[in-house]
Amino acid sequence: MKTLGYYNGTIGEIDEVMVPMSDRACYFGDGVYDASYSVNSVIFALEDHISRFYNSAGLVEIRIPMARAELRELLLDLVKKVDCKTGVIVYWQASRGTAPRSHVFPEGPSNLWVMIRELEFINNFVPFKVITLEDTRFLHCHIKTLNLLPSVIASEKAKRSGCDEVVFHRNGRVTECAHSNVHIIQNGIFRTSPTDNLILPGIARGRLAKLALDLGIPVDYSPFTLGDLFAAEEVIITSSGALCVPVDAVDARPVGGKAPELLNKLRLAAIEEFEAETGSRLPRSAA
Amino acid sequence: MKTLGYYNGTIGEIDEVMVPMSDRACYFGDGVYDASYSVNSVIFALEDHISRFYNSAGLVEIRIPMARAELRELLLDLVKKVDCKTGVIVYWQASRGTAPRSHVFPEGPSNLWVMIRELEFINNFVPFKVITLEDTRFLHCHIKTLNLLPSVIASEKAKRSGCDEVVFHRNGRVTECAHSNVHIIQNGIFRTSPTDNLILPGIARGRLAKLALDLGIPVDYSPFTLGDLFAAEEVIITSSGALCVPVDAVDARPVGGKAPELLNKLRLAAIEEFEAETGSRLPRSAA
Repeated sequence: MKTLGYYNGTIGEIDEVMVPMSDRACYFGDGVYDASYSVNSVIFALEDHISRFYNSAGLVEIRIPMARAELRELLLDLVKKVDCKTGVIVYWQASRGTAPRSHVFPEGPSNLWVMIRELEFINNFVPFKVITLEDTRFLHCHIKTLNLLPSVIASEKAKRSGCDEVVFHRNGRVTECAHSNVHIIQNGIFRTSPTDNLILPGIARGRLAKLALDLGIPVDYSPFTLGDLFAAEEVIITSSGALCVPVDAVDARPVGGKAPELLNKLRLAAIEEFEAETGSRLPRSAA
Repeated sequence: MKTLGYYNGTIGEIDEVMVPMSDRACYFGDGVYDASYSVNSVIFALEDHISRFYNSAGLVEIRIPMARAELRELLLDLVKKVDCKTGVIVYWQASRGTAPRSHVFPEGPSNLWVMIRELEFINNFVPFKVITLEDTRFLHCHIKTLNLLPSVIASEKAKRSGCDEVVFHRNGRVTECAHSNVHIIQNGIFRTSPTDNLILPGIARGRLAKLALDLGIPVDYSPFTLGDLFAAEEVIITSSGALCVPVDAVDARPVGGKAPELLNKLRLAAIEEFEAETGSRLPRSAA
């Protein structure tokens, strides 16, 4: 198969799979999701992603319709069905069942959706340009829900500015990006927002912070500001598709580039970890 | 037909209509909606609802795939296909197209969905009991989007407390309910939150405020607090299904009931307006 869509056991190409219009994902965004890259049929950091998926579901009281082990086997089985030269993004979500539209929870099981398709991995050597925006999202950003309209709008704004991402801030305090986490190197310290209800606890974020410690780089989990960001030695973005991508411009002002060796050590460690787990080879330059 | 589902021209019973899993409503909640009651094939306040629908769409840059007049005719045509003894709820939404999952806006047209089903109108003489909750939603509550998970969770909390609705507040300032607006009578004045980005500009809210003025009741659009709510002469909820419903308990404490004649004048005016437009007859008592 070229792509794979899965809905409660039905499988087909993504653009062929149909779902009931009364699935609560369709009219309430009433669901949670997770996603990771896969190369050579290995889904990177799968246990971490599955843990976060069940945690998100628990926080909004959605019962995933299968046990962890069964979901893991399903995803690993599905990913093998997709023909792919490079890598694929494996996306899955659970929605709170199918029912006539009414806000209160319905009876009956939740629905499991999977979408798998080829997607080029982000080259960690090509810096991002970003814009900043006031963070107007809800106060449940630690849950990976389907309520993503503010991130959609923000991403489109970034694109129209010729940029790759948006750095959200609440009254100057940096939270995260529209679909990534953001961090800075300041005085040789790796700084990243604390995991409260304002940011998603990114898997790549957690891994990069751990790699920093392994490399002897101190990690500071206290909030930082836009001022810190503009003055930082390096600005770094992480997501499932971006292991350790530097940012070289924020709102068209040059940033970072002042601790290239430290950045390189971190980036190389993240790349090597990904390669070791997936048996793949990622670029070592911007070319 | 017993119910009616519509998706880009396909029509069937709601639980039979299928939609593509890659419609952006399904994984981003990337859409806007509106809804109204219909009796005798008349959709109440249809022009107001259509105006708000196009306004919501404009605010998030979704192009509704048909002109106003065409949408109006479609909805009025569809509502006639449903067999119904009492009244139906007519719900419609537009989603930002069908595409592989990527935050930025896709090429191609948006999708139009309609769901119509029988739903008993709320008896305006049966008081609501409500709970209060901190308003943790996003800062775009004036747009009627499909990002409704916080309202879903709040509504479930109300149900578990044996209540009908939730009054949201931001640090004590009352905003609105999970799927209604809330107002108070204080010193003979009708008070309702101003229409900023924290509340939906409810159609029933706007009509009730206008009726209040017609009855010589002053209207105050400045913010009010939970303290005002608890001390109010009357607490009133409005929505498309609730024209003017009093609240008699907030967090299990009795409220309102101190201006029954004024409440009755308002309620009767709202009921008569609905009846005149739809040629229907609504209850005049709790029985």
